[in-house]
Order: sequence, then structure tokens, then C-alpha cells
Amino acid sequence: MRKLRLGMVGGGQGAFIGGVHRIAARLDGRWDLVAGALSSDPERARASAAELGLPPDRSYGDFAEMARAEAARADGIDAVAIVTPNHMHAAPAVAFLDAGIHVICDKPLAATRADAEAIAAAVARSGRQFILTHNYTAYPLMRQAREMIAQGELGEIRVVQVEYAQDWLTEETSNKQADWRTDPARSGAGGCVGDIGTHAFNLACFVTGLEPEALLADLGTFVPGRRVDDNVQVLLRFRGGARGMLWASQVAVGNENALRLRVYGSKGGLEWAQETPNAMSFTRFGAPRQTLTRGGAGATPAGQTLLRVPPGHPEGYLEGFATLYAEAADLIGGLADGTPPAGTQLPGIGDGLAGMRFIGACIDSSRANGVWTDL
Amino acid sequence: MRKLRLGMVGGGQGAFIGGVHRIAARLDGRWDLVAGALSSDPERARASAAELGLPPDRSYGDFAEMARAEAARADGIDAVAIVTPNHMHAAPAVAFLDAGIHVICDKPLAATRADAEAIAAAVARSGRQFILTHNYTAYPLMRQAREMIAQGELGEIRVVQVEYAQDWLTEETSNKQADWRTDPARSGAGGCVGDIGTHAFNLACFVTGLEPEALLADLGTFVPGRRVDDNVQVLLRFRGGARGMLWASQVAVGNENALRLRVYGSKGGLEWAQETPNAMSFTRFGAPRQTLTRGGAGATPAGQTLLRVPPGHPEGYLEGFATLYAEAADLIGGLADGTPPAGTQLPGIGDGLAGMRFIGACIDSSRANGVWTDL
Amino acid sequence: MRKLRLGMVGGGQGAFIGGVHRIAARLDGRWDLVAGALSSDPERARASAAELGLPPDRSYGDFAEMARAEAARADGIDAVAIVTPNHMHAAPAVAFLDAGIHVICDKPLAATRADAEAIAAAVARSGRQFILTHNYTAYPLMRQAREMIAQGELGEIRVVQVEYAQDWLTEETSNKQADWRTDPARSGAGGCVGDIGTHAFNLACFVTGLEPEALLADLGTFVPGRRVDDNVQVLLRFRGGARGMLWASQVAVGNENALRLRVYGSKGGLEWAQETPNAMSFTRFGAPRQTLTRGGAGATPAGQTLLRVPPGHPEGYLEGFATLYAEAADLIGGLADGTPPAGTQLPGIGDGLAGMRFIGACIDSSRANGVWTDL
Amino acid sequence: MRKLRLGMVGGGQGAFIGGVHRIAARLDGRWDLVAGALSSDPERARASAAELGLPPDRSYGDFAEMARAEAARADGIDAVAIVTPNHMHAAPAVAFLDAGIHVICDKPLAATRADAEAIAAAVARSGRQFILTHNYTAYPLMRQAREMIAQGELGEIRVVQVEYAQDWLTEETSNKQADWRTDPARSGAGGCVGDIGTHAFNLACFVTGLEPEALLADLGTFVPGRRVDDNVQVLLRFRGGARGMLWASQVAVGNENALRLRVYGSKGGLEWAQETPNAMSFTRFGAPRQTLTRGGAGATPAGQTLLRVPPGHPEGYLEGFATLYAEAADLIGGLADGTPPAGTQLPGIGDGLAGMRFIGACIDSSRANGVWTDL
Repeated sequence: MRKLRLGMVGGGQGAFIGGVHRIAARLDGRWDLVAGALSSDPERARASAAELGLPPDRSYGDFAEMARAEAARADGIDAVAIVTPNHMHAAPAVAFLDAGIHVICDKPLAATRADAEAIAAAVARSGRQFILTHNYTAYPLMRQAREMIAQGELGEIRVVQVEYAQDWLTEETSNKQADWRTDPARSGAGGCVGDIGTHAFNLACFVTGLEPEALLADLGTFVPGRRVDDNVQVLLRFRGGARGMLWASQVAVGNENALRLRVYGSKGGLEWAQETPNAMSFTRFGAPRQTLTRGGAGATPAGQTLLRVPPGHPEGYLEGFATLYAEAADLIGGLADGTPPAGTQLPGIGDGLAGMRFIGACIDSSRANGVWTDL
Repeated sequence: MRKLRLGMVGGGQGAFIGGVHRIAARLDGRWDLVAGALSSDPERARASAAELGLPPDRSYGDFAEMARAEAARADGIDAVAIVTPNHMHAAPAVAFLDAGIHVICDKPLAATRADAEAIAAAVARSGRQFILTHNYTAYPLMRQAREMIAQGELGEIRVVQVEYAQDWLTEETSNKQADWRTDPARSGAGGCVGDIGTHAFNLACFVTGLEPEALLADLGTFVPGRRVDDNVQVLLRFRGGARGMLWASQVAVGNENALRLRVYGSKGGLEWAQETPNAMSFTRFGAPRQTLTRGGAGATPAGQTLLRVPPGHPEGYLEGFATLYAEAADLIGGLADGTPPAGTQLPGIGDGLAGMRFIGACIDSSRANGVWTDL
Repeated sequence: MRKLRLGMVGGGQGAFIGGVHRIAARLDGRWDLVAGALSSDPERARASAAELGLPPDRSYGDFAEMARAEAARADGIDAVAIVTPNHMHAAPAVAFLDAGIHVICDKPLAATRADAEAIAAAVARSGRQFILTHNYTAYPLMRQAREMIAQGELGEIRVVQVEYAQDWLTEETSNKQADWRTDPARSGAGGCVGDIGTHAFNLACFVTGLEPEALLADLGTFVPGRRVDDNVQVLLRFRGGARGMLWASQVAVGNENALRLRVYGSKGGLEWAQETPNAMSFTRFGAPRQTLTRGGAGATPAGQTLLRVPPGHPEGYLEGFATLYAEAADLIGGLADGTPPAGTQLPGIGDGLAGMRFIGACIDSSRANGVWTDL
Repeated sequence: MRKLRLGMVGGGQGAFIGGVHRIAARLDGRWDLVAGALSSDPERARASAAELGLPPDRSYGDFAEMARAEAARADGIDAVAIVTPNHMHAAPAVAFLDAGIHVICDKPLAATRADAEAIAAAVARSGRQFILTHNYTAYPLMRQAREMIAQGELGEIRVVQVEYAQDWLTEETSNKQADWRTDPARSGAGGCVGDIGTHAFNLACFVTGLEPEALLADLGTFVPGRRVDDNVQVLLRFRGGARGMLWASQVAVGNENALRLRVYGSKGGLEWAQETPNAMSFTRFGAPRQTLTRGGAGATPAGQTLLRVPPGHPEGYLEGFATLYAEAADLIGGLADGTPPAGTQLPGIGDGLAGMRFIGACIDSSRANGVWTDL
């Protein structure tokens, strides 16, 4: 398999998620990072590119130039990773898609509905791939959970409890990561709901395969002066009758990154927590609770997605993220070779739009003091 | 200290909670069970009394006779425990209170609001004690949590997540316990919400000391043909601005009796689960998570409530229940001796009425398709 | 069933284990405490008896007088509980047995081998019951583990890892409990090995049903000036080829009462920890790990020993202890009525002697710098 | 920083640990794999090299040729990773060291003491770096534990309990991984003791900083026909008086890769388990147990070793392994540039020799039926 060529927009010095994307792209040896517009600050862009060993002629001052230049090269990038703050997703995404280059974009899709629709339109007209890095869906046990539910192991799904608790914004905080996430101009109108609520919502839908129908939300802001929500409480209704609750918080003291999903059906229940991702609890009604491990006894085919090391050798956040990049390589490389894979579990534009509807509905419902709002 | 004399209404053969009350009363050696109207079925009442070694002349055919007779005896009972199904709380409670006998009553207070008010009126006019066995409040770590919060260890409370998940009603079930709990005529209009939702609500209020202001509920019934709710999802607002979520379910496969409380404030967070009641997680913002154990390092005075065995020697459900009986003995014996305790943490009529308001508001809100309803 | 009459030797004010025995005797309502020689200090004996509501004429100044007097009464005690420090077990045990009274005795059996043999001889000549309160064997899941192993669910047992870690003697400590346990004249030559090592050894043998063949021990004393061991490390060999390790420590900082047993056979493995006694891990080779709960799905008949409350309602240390007293009532009451139970799982004199051999062999092996020593 | 050039001996198709080394080398972007002698089977060597994208002229038929050729190239490899079975470590290690090429070698050091000494001699005469991939030492919390102990946070170390339990060899097993590990000609005389016992021993010594003085071992083989040990039970004595127990097993049903370390001192205790490597329990005597997380509150400088993602975003086995490769790049690149780092925590030849002494002493002690054997 040819190694694919990756470009990056954003992710310069001091960024968090850009570094994660780079490790993820490297881990399975399927991508080479060869080009970038790493910062809107030219000095930082240059220095970041040098640090990463990018050839100087492929360190671009802005994404538009990069899209044009890379599209024109015979050895141009196969895909671009967009790892900027939310309000800076749409412009580069559209530029690269329109230049014929596949896009891997961090979540949520965009800061505004208009931006989101612009991206969706570009995806549609370009025919290019658009991959949204809802990385938590790529944990092997989440793939396995989805497969078990699809195969009816839990019976008819009744109750979905999902939560994502952090505490890093418990007090007024100022740093590169906090600043843009609490600035509506950069993050969009949703704070916590966009940053982590969308992950929780996406994961619940991915795993259960249920279609969300409506929600009712109560968004709160506990830190004085904060301009976006920092605590999100939502009731969910799914088509077919299942009910859910979603809680996301950035002020839940004692929680680092506690994404947790629990699903209960007429025949069984599943419980999983992101901070210990190599085990999942599964109970068939009337039988003892089982602990299913990543790739361990009882692993389904989907649960054996890209196992790099045997059970008991913990994989983590970066491996899940890397799986997205490996699958992106399968997809994009396969398309280039005329051998696309039969299907993919990669999150895409549809997930991005669903996330935007989720954010919007949460804000609308909450502003109306809690009314059921269609999704 | 004189051992006090206890009577019991309900709790005959085949009952569950009656046996729990008897063990709880016995455990600390403060009560002798001396009289009972153990069943509405005279044969079962007699047999049950014989099994428990009650003197035949104090095994009564009905509670009214029992109240009259015991009130007339010089060695009459000091208190009566009422352990019947919900719809059978009010009549005996009123009878005993009006006969001047203190009442210890299982929760929820009653099946209907009218019944609840009748009890409250009898409490008021009789001046007798009324103790409602919200037993989970008596776990030492819940007493400690309440004290820590009252002392400001968590700062201002922001978020309260409480849940009570069981799975025993996942399928259509018929037995003595299930039958009355799923029959609105006996349990009241609320099923899961009354049986376990009230425990969760009560515990959240007890521990946080917050006053609940309003709720918004979505009650569901997943088992076909069931006439009461079996899954309860509630948003809560507390006076002062704290927000909460409450989930109670009897169809959450894999959960036996998973009452769990999490409280987050501006300075710290607490997390506790009833199934492992001897440990509680506590985090001060910015410091490592601590595991506080029953009576262990860092135990506050309230956390040392009736420690019978040292840390590491697990106490459980029955010991918590017994603490209510021991404190009831302190209170009732103290009143009899003219030496009542300075205060008490025992749940009482106020908690019972709050629970009824909770049930009613949940039902009302849910029937209106989810509207904020005052408490 | 007639309530049985219990006497007690030791257990006066300030004692720990005496109070535990009294709660255990009370919990299931099978025993009345009616007589005692509660302290060797007459003043404390009187005060303790008054506090417990014993009739003054049955509060005795010494055990010998008590044995004579109770044996002579028509309503004399059915059994006596001996809850004194180790060096004070033999004299009262022999006196009561020889007076025809059944004995329930705290562990270890005695402080010296001579004492142990004196008790054994008295048991043999009296034909009375002798019950040693190795309470951990009475946890329902330990009964279930024993049954599962006996039925071959684990295959042939290969490895037994047992440990009992505490930290309360990490530093030089002086209080009623610590003083006698670290005084060879009162505890016997073994410190930690006798106090908790015997529990670990007994539990491992009880659950596995294996016969211990030899051991090799390394006893250590870490606290300067301490006259007995406070850390015990032992290799074990069982008849049939199984191997084991036993670790007991009173200086393992962070451990309150961490008795833990793990057993592995050719077909399966079991893991259990006393501090969370309502769950046990069970794995069939090649299948997912299961969590078996007290009385929950998959509970065997033995695992349903005296379930007082349903799964998810935690029982603990006192309930296990109470099971010994309830079974003692079945046994002693049954013998009195001519209807003894078909069998019993109660620990007895054989366990006591095995424990003494264990202590002796540990000390001998360790003094010889670690040599295999027969049991 | 220049990317360094890596070669590999072993690790062809079907290998396990070779792939791990490659991911580890890639993850932080510090190494390019440019040459290999990937298999002793020329066909497999070629195919493996092609799969990895190695240039054909740098896919060698044997390690000796590779050492010569690479040493002669201006752009020759900076280091070689040796990932063959144990009996094939010494010859290539010596060849590359003598060719002036640094070596990164999988553990244990060798299959025989003679081999180990040959490697040590080559290290000494060549002056080249020799890094042994005891990867578990590179988990950030193990670095932090070592630092905390070195700084006296636990006081004087008293007790070290280390274990490494697996179950994959519970039955007779035949596959590429099992075959060589149970063949004394390839694994050396130790089976389980060499494969995983050495990891446990190394980790205990690394973290505590204690010098092991003597051991006493009981090795067992439970699977009929197996020619090496599959269960290892060891008593340890450290210089200064600390005592330890080490258990390693490949037949402990229910355990995947359960390396666990517990250390207790006069002031505190630490407990950690490899399968959940992002949390460590720490207790100061008399204070509540704390959960320290990777990079979380209370992280020491050493605990912040190469944090790639924030707390709550789990890192795992591969990240620990990658840290060794990143530090190897710092060391080897630094030496090349004349800017070697001030110190290193990388395991080296000394650890390898200590591991060989450990294996030898275990076998000797066990054959002598358990005698204390100097280390």
C-alpha cells in the first residue's frame, strides 16, 4: 500500500488537537505529513513547519494558497486535516473540497449553521470524502457495541444514558484551549454542548443505531462572566420509542474526561466508560454481568477493528484516533486505486450536520425554557 | 437504656420489607417486637405471629383493634412500624397517631395525595413522632456527605446527578412484590417514580440540603401491559440555581439496586454508589481524587454515625436501616424519659410530603409532555 | 423455633469483638444473651452487664463460677461465646465444655499449642459442639465459591493466592486492641500471622477444599520494638500439587481490612475481596469474566445461604458473622430437640487446630530462615 | 531534530513484538525504519520488507550482512532493534555493537548466561548504547512512582508485592508466539519466569530503587508436557530489609496481562495495575487514599514524561513503548550531535544482566526445593 500524503490546516505551536491528529496519522504508518498552513500567524506557521520537518515550499501562509498549490502538484496531498477552532472549519474545508482534495475535519462541524451548510454543499458538489473526527466511535469496544446492538443482542433498545463530564472549566480559565472554546465568535453559540455534548450525542447515535427524534434541553452557565454554556442537561426521544438522557459538563469537579455510555434494551444492557476503554460491561437479562475486553473472549468481528496489541495491553485515545486515519487511508487510497472498501464506519458530513442540529436544538429548547424540539 | 416496645402492621409471611424492619429493629438491641397485625389475612396473621414468637394476645386481627388495645395497655408499644403496601399506610398511621402511638412508616408516604394529607394532619394533631424509613440517608457516608456540603467543602452546589437503576421489572413479572408495585390501586399512580424515584429524590435533597424548586419529567412504560411507569427521567431545578438530573428505572438490565448520587460544587465534587456504600469519592478542585471510607481517614463527626465495626469491615443496607431504628429509639425513648435528643436527622412527615409532591409533579409534568412544574 | 440462651465470657466495655458477637447473635433473632462474665475486672464486668441489661444474678465474677452456675440452672445457657484475648480462650472453653455447655469461640483457637490441645481434648471428651468464628467463611459468595469448586467448575485447582492486608499497626500503637495483639504473652508467639494470617489460611482451605501439605514462611517485624511479626509472606503447597502464596500484613499503608482470595484451576478462576463482599469475579477459560453477586444471577444453592435482602442491597461483615450464629442455633437447637441438621459448614475444632499448626509452622519455618515445613 | 534511522532484526510477518516496536518507533515521529533482516526465512524476509516499504537493497538476508553493510553506509542506521526470540538476541547484538551501531533489544536479555555475558562484553568494548525494552517502566505513573519513592514520600520501603498474571497458556497451546516461549532451546531454561517474571522483577526494582539481595523460588509447571515453568512464586529480600513477593503465572484464568505492583513504606503506600495504567493509588498513612492520574493533579515532573494527551485521555501500552523510542532518540541523536542528555531512565545492559541473574536464581532456588539464593 502506498503511503498517502497529508496536509494540515491549523495545529501550529501551542495547539492541542493538531498534535493528536499528527500522531494518529503516523501511528499506523499510512500517512506522511507533507504540507501545512499551520497557523494564521506567519511566523508561528514557519516555525511550526520547521519543527515538523515540512519542506519550506510546502509550508503555506494561508489555506487558500495551499489548496491551490497542492491541487496543482503531481505529488499533491491526498487529504487535508483541518484542526482549527470551529469558526475556521468552513472556509478551508470548502476551499480544499472545491480543489478536489479530501478533507478530514475536527468536530464539531462548524460554528454556525450557515458554515455547516456551506461545507455540506461543497461535499455534495465536489464528490470528495469528508471525514469528521468523532474519534470515540473508533474504540474497538464501541464498534463492538454497535454491532451487538445491530444484531439484536440487547433486544429492542429502551433507554440510553450518555454523559460527558469534565472539570477543567470549573473556574474562570484563560489559556489557548479555553479561550476559543468559551468565545462564541470562535466556538459558536454552544460551549460545552458543542465541544463535548456533540461527542456524547454522536456516540449514543453511532452505537445504538437509533434515530434521534426530539430533545428537550436545559443549558446552564455556572462560572460568572462565561459567555457560553458549561453544563448541559438534555432529555432525548428516539424514533421507535427509546428515551435518553444526556449530560455534559465542564464543571463536574473530579472528572477529567469522563465520557460514559449506557444502553438498555429488552434483553440486555451495555455500559462503557471512555477513561477505561478496554473493558465494557454486558449483561443478558437474568444472567451474570460480563466484562468484555478489547479483543478478548467474546469479541465480535467489529470489536476486532485494528487490534494492534493483544487484550490486556491497553490501547487508548490515540489508537482510537489512529483508527480513523487508518480507515481514511483505506478509503482514500482505495478510491485513488479504484479499489474502495465495501463500506466504512467513518463519521462524515451526515454526522456533522446531525451534530449541528443537536447544538441548535439544545440552544433553542433551552432558550424556550425547555420545550421538546425536533431534530 | 430501657428497650422499647415495637408493634408492626403488615410484614407477614412472604413480605420483604417487614423482615428488613424487624432485623433493623433488632440489630442494635434497642427494640423488642411485642405486638402485630401482620396480615389482613387472619390465618396468615396468626401464623406469622407465631413464627415471630409474639404473644398470642398481642397478635391482632386488624390494626384498628391493635391501636386501641395497645394504647390501653400499661406496657403498650412505644411505636408501631407500618410496612404495608402504599395504599395501606394512611389508615393505620392515622389510627396509631390518634391513639398516641409514634409511627415508623415505610416509604413512599402514601398512594394518594389525600392519604398523605390525612397522615400529615394526624401527625400535627397528635404531636407524635412520624418517621419515614428513607433508609439510604442513614448510611454513614451519606451523613458525612451532607455534613461536608453544609460546611462548604464543595463550595456552592451547581450540579446534582442522581439515579436509581434496577432491572427486576425488565419483563412482565408476577410475584407478591411486583404485583402491588405495578398496581396503581395499591402503589399509587406512580410506579417506578414512587417506589425508587422518591428514594433518589429524597437522598439528593438530604445530602445537598438544597430546596427543590421545579422539575420536568418524562415517564415511560416499556413493558407492554404495565399500568405504571417503569422508567423515569427528570430535570431538576433547585432554589439558588443548582441543576439536577434524576433517572430511575426498573428495566435497566444489569443493575440490581444501583442508587448513585453525584454532587458537584464550585470547589469540589462527591460521588457515591449504594451498592458499594463503604466508600465515597471526593475531589477538591485541582487536587487528586480521594476515596473516603466509612469511618476511615478523614471521617467527619456525622460520618461516624453509629459505626459498629471499623473501616474495612463492610456495613450494608441492614446497618443503615438499623441506624434509623436506633435513632428512633433515642428519640422516642428520650421523649418518654424527658430527655429528647437535641436534634435528629431522621426523615419525617416533611420528607414524606415532599416525596408526594415529587411523584405528583413528575406525573403532571410528564402527562403535559414535559413542562416545568413547581414543587 | 425456641430462642436459644447465650452466655458470654469477655466482651466488656472497650472490647471490639464482643460487641460484634452480640450483634451477630441478635441479628437473626435466634439468641438471647442472658448471662456473662464480661470482664476479669469485677467493676467493669458489673457495669458492662448492666449496660447490656443482663440480670444481676447472671453477671458472674469469673467464668468458672459462671460455668458451674449455668450448668446447674434449668434455664441455663445453651452456649457460651468466648471473646477474650487468645491466651484466655482455653481455660473457659474447657470449663464450659466440661460443664456440658456448647462453646462458640473467637479465633485463633489459642495462644499456645498446649492450650489448643487442652481445648481439643475437652471437645472430644465432652461431646459438645465447638464453633470457631472464622466469620469470613460465612459470606454467601464464599459458600458459593466452595460449592463451585467442589462441583468442578474451576477444574483441578492449581494456584491459590490469598492475602490479608491492613495498615493499622504501621506505626507504634497503643490501645486496648493493639496492646494484647502485639504482646506474645496474650496473643501467642504469632502476631499478624495469628491475628489475620489464620483467617486467610482458613478461608483458602475452606473455599478450595484443598488439604495443605507444607509451607515456607518469611515473617518480618517492621516497627521497631514490636515483639511479634507484622508482615507475613508464605509459600504454600497443597496435596495434589496446587501451589499458593499467602501474604498478611498490618503495615500495608492504604489497606483497611483487605482480605482477598484468588483461586485458579485448569478450567476457571475466581477472585473475591472482603471489602466488597457482594461481588465475586468468575471466569471460565476462554469466556468473558463474569461478576457473580450475592444471591444474584447464577447463584448456587450454597450462595443463597441466609440471604436477608435481595441482590444489590449490600450485606456485610456483621451479616456474615450473624450467619454463624444462626447456623449455630440450627445446630445446637436441633441437637437439643433431637433434630440436628444433616450437616454444617460451621468452622470447628479441626479448623482451630489447623490454624495452630499453620501459626507454628510459619514461626518454625521462618526461624529456620525459610525451609519447607509440614502441616 | 533530525529523524533517526532505524534497522530491525526479526519482526517479519506473523511476529508480535516486532510490530509493537515499529509502532513505538513511529508514534512520536523520531525514527524512520530504513533497513531490516526481518526473518531468517529469506522469502518471508523479502515479503515482510516489501510490506513495510523498505528499500530492497536494505532488506538483508541475515543480520551479519546487515551490520556490515549498514556500518559502511554514510546514511547507515543509527540503531538496530532486535526483536527475535531470546536465543537469537546475542549474535546480532554483538554483531551490531561491534559494527559501532547502537542496539535496542527486546527482553529478556538472552536465553543463556553465556549469551548475556557476550552481549555485556560487546557493550563494554564498543562503547555503544544498549537499550532493553522493559517498556512497563516507561508508563508515566511508574516514572512518577519511582520519583515519589526516591523523594521519600513513602518513607522507608518495607514491603513490595509484584505480580504478573496471564492465562493464555492455561491449556496446551501451539502458535508462533507460544511455541518459542515454551521451548527451552529458544526461550532459555525459564518459561514464564523469563517471559513475564523478568518484567515484574524489573519493574519492582525500577520503581522502588531497592537493590535485590536474595530470593527463594517455587517454580511450577501445570500443563502436562510443558517443558518450562508456567507459574512462578518467589520470596524476595532487598538490601536494607524490605521484603517482597513476586508471582508470575501464565495459567491464571481470567487474567489477560495483569501486571500489578504494590509498594508499602513506613509513611505511605502505592498500588498500580498495568491494565488500567492511567491511575495509581497513593495513600499517606492516616490520610484518605488518593487516585493519582497520568498527568493529573499532583503529577510530579517525572510523571509528566512525554504526556501526549491530557489526563482522562487514556494512553496505553504503545505510548509507554514509544516513550522508550523517543528517549532512545534523545540519547542516540544527542550523542551523535555531541549534546547527549544529562541522564536517562532507559533500561540497559545492567537491567538485562539483573534479569538474567533473577531467572538463574529462580531456577536454582526452585531446583534445590526452595533455598535462599543470592542475586
